[in-house]
This record gives sequence, C-alpha cells and structure tokens, in this order.
Amino acid sequence: MSFMACVLTVSDTCDVDHSKDTSGPLLTSRLTGKGFDMIETAIVADDVLRIQGKLCEWSDRALGVDLIVTTGGTGFTARDVTPEATKAIVDRDAPGIAHALISGSLKATPMAMLSRLSAGIRKRTLIINFPGSAKACDECLAIVEPVLSHAIHQLRGDTTATASAHK
Amino acid sequence: MSFMACVLTVSDTCDVDHSKDTSGPLLTSRLTGKGFDMIETAIVADDVLRIQGKLCEWSDRALGVDLIVTTGGTGFTARDVTPEATKAIVDRDAPGIAHALISGSLKATPMAMLSRLSAGIRKRTLIINFPGSAKACDECLAIVEPVLSHAIHQLRGDTTATASAHK
Amino acid sequence: MSFMACVLTVSDTCDVDHSKDTSGPLLTSRLTGKGFDMIETAIVADDVLRIQGKLCEWSDRALGVDLIVTTGGTGFTARDVTPEATKAIVDRDAPGIAHALISGSLKATPMAMLSRLSAGIRKRTLIINFPGSAKACDECLAIVEPVLSHAIHQLRGDTTATASAHK
Ligand code: NA
Repeated sequence: MSFMACVLTVSDTCDVDHSKDTSGPLLTSRLTGKGFDMIETAIVADDVLRIQGKLCEWSDRALGVDLIVTTGGTGFTARDVTPEATKAIVDRDAPGIAHALISGSLKATPMAMLSRLSAGIRKRTLIINFPGSAKACDECLAIVEPVLSHAIHQLRGDTTATASAHK
Repeated sequence: MSFMACVLTVSDTCDVDHSKDTSGPLLTSRLTGKGFDMIETAIVADDVLRIQGKLCEWSDRALGVDLIVTTGGTGFTARDVTPEATKAIVDRDAPGIAHALISGSLKATPMAMLSRLSAGIRKRTLIINFPGSAKACDECLAIVEPVLSHAIHQLRGDTTATASAHK
Repeated sequence: MSFMACVLTVSDTCDVDHSKDTSGPLLTSRLTGKGFDMIETAIVADDVLRIQGKLCEWSDRALGVDLIVTTGGTGFTARDVTPEATKAIVDRDAPGIAHALISGSLKATPMAMLSRLSAGIRKRTLIINFPGSAKACDECLAIVEPVLSHAIHQLRGDTTATASAHK
C-alpha cells in the first residue's frame, strides 16, 4: 500500500507566476522518487486563510492524505505566516520533527535560527513546514525521510508496524 | 527533606491488564533509588480527561507533589494524547527539559522525531512526559536526573539553593 | 541605517535596588558595541502585566524598535513569568532562536534544561528572552548575534537584503 502526499507552495511571488516555483516541483519529484503517490499540489499566496484552506481540504479527505509538505512562508518577513496558519489547524503538535529540522538546519547555517517552521497532525495527516528554498527543502526532506514510513503507519493505525515503535 | 514523586502510566493496554506495565514499575524503582518518596502511581487509558484527572489531583495536593513523570501516549497513533492533556493543564512550559529529552533521544535513534513529549509546571509540580517504552524511560530519566534537584528547589522557593541558578 | 534596541531587566530584586542590575547594563554595553542604538532600558518586577506593559510600549512605537532583549524571569521559581508574558503578546513565534539558545546553553551546562526562554515577533519587533545571569546573557548574545542583522532586515521588509535568505 502506497503513501499519499500533497505539496503546498506558499509564496506571493509563485502565486502570481507559477513558473517561479522550484521548491514545489523538487518536493514532488523527491517524494515520488521515494514511492509516494502525489495526490495534488498547489500554490497559494502568503495568506493564512488560503494556506489553511488547502491544508484542511487535503487533510479532511475521506481517503486521507498521509503527508502534506509546505514550502515557504517560514521566515521573518511580515508576510511569512505559514507556521501560524498550520499551528491553528492541527490537532496535535509534532515537536520532535520540528526539533530535528531546526537542529539539522542549524548544522548547515546559523541562519536556520530564522526558521519558524512547525509540524503537526490533523486527523490522520502529518503536516510539515519546510523553508522556501529548494536547497533547504532537499536538506529537510533528507532529515525526516527515515521516519516518514513509521509516522504514517502510526497515523493509519497499522498496529503491526507500530508494535516496536519508540513512541 | 526528601522529594515526592508520582508516576502515571498512560496506556489502553496496561489499563486493561496492569501486569503489562513495565515502564511504570521501572520509573518507580529508579526514582526511589534516587531518593524520591513515591507518593502514588496509577495507570490510566489514553484518554485526555483521565490523564488530566490524575495530573491535577496530584499537582493540586496541599502537600504538593514535586515531580510527576508520565509514560506512554506520546507517539503518533490516534490514541496518543498525553502531551495534549498535559499542555492544557500546566501553568508554565518547561521547554528546556523537552528540548534536552528530544535532543538526547535523537542521538539514540531518528525515530525520536516521532516523540511529541512535553514538560511543564502546574503550581509547584514539575510534570514531564516520557515515552512508553521502559528503555526510553530509562534513557530519559538519565537525561533529566542532573537537574531534578535544582528544579524542585526552585519550585519550592528554596532561595538558598537557587541563588546560584542559571535561571 | 542603524538598528534600534531596548533592554528590559525583569527582576523583583533589581526593581527595588537598580544597582543590583548587572545583566541590563552588560546587554546595553554589548548591543551598543555591536552598533545598536539603545532607545530605552527599563527594570520591572517579575510581574506579567508590568513586563507586557514595557514589551508592548516598545514594540508598538511608530518608529519601531527592532530588537527587545529581556533578561531574567526565565527559571522555575513561582515568580519567573517572563516567557509567559512574552508569548501572550507576540504575534508570531521564533522557535529557531529559542532552539539555538537552549541548545547552545545546554553545551555549557545541563542546568540550561531549566531555562524556559522564548522568542517571538510583535509587529516588526523581535523579542528575545535571555536568562538572568550576566554570564548567560553574554553567551546568549554571542549565539544570536550572527543572525540579528538578517532578522531585522526581514522584519523591516528590506527585500534586497532578504533576497538570499534561507527562510
Ligand atoms: Na539540539
């Protein structure tokens, strides 16, 4: 059984000119390469309601999406509100994922201190905020990749796979 | 003056069959060995209200409990709600403890990314979520042990002991 | 164009006897040395409303303050409420900064687990909680210093400077 993913690019610039979105296609390519079925991708402006609209639409599907990765809107500019949009619609936090992403990013550059990314769970869907740059997305995916399968099995309630979980 | 602790095992499985609880007895044994007076232990199902009932009962005692350690319910399955139950009843967060636990656990396994544990303070009681496995509890206790005495002295208002605190 | 900073010392002791405040003057000296214009400094008791009064007064100015650093009130004693006061008045969290500060402090001493510091953004002002000791303030400033300029450029909306941001 394969995993289902969606990718949400959050960027005023890319919302106006889709051809400027490099991170979204990169994430789609990487996740497909890891065996995920890409259910849908979208580009929205840096706007809380537009971000939440997509996150909720995808995580509330009957045939649930397992993973949503967002890219962009995690910085310090006034328009960067992806983490706020995300935190307000998740049921449960996933602080271990956010911790690992920030910790890993800090090893590459102190500028990762300016990342405000979050991760959480809405219903059965894991939602993770990645930074806006394609390079940072690649690094972040490499960090979380080892646990995605296990996370999704737990969210789906596949008890066999979770019996040995370090939960 | 000795420190007073309670241990709460959170697990649907152990709630039905107490003999399956290995983490609770291990924590009781370890804390007793470190000089804590074990005031009470309990096992509850993975249910927000049952978890909060015990956390509040213990932290609201007139002769306050210094430390409550929970084990279980910190993972990604739908029933894992210990962090949510805890965060809703603490007055203040203790993010430094959660940080050290996640950081230390990540050194052992990337699966620690799936830990959603939290730590906080209710009145004068420090409440820390540990994972469900006995091995992980042992590792987590080793991480926080060096600061427990200092934390409790601060919570009790023992100003002499806290005079030199890195607070 | 220079950056504008304020320093808030939070301490019952220093509020009564200003001469006991060593961390505030140290932060003022360090920030001035790094080219910040010190707009104002203040000392308040460990009281949520008094802390928030200063944080809001400064961050709500028309000619915005870029950076507010608080010192004190981040520990476990009953009076330590600086993080709670801060979290309630910021619009957005800056978890990467809090992460780096706790992570860096833990390298010096496990007692950093008792730090409850937070960081966030109110309007265009970055607010960071530092511990109460002058030595810890010095260490924390060294940790965040490499990203302050970039953070402030992003908050001000200086798009040229942020074009290459790892946001
Ligand atoms: Na770390």
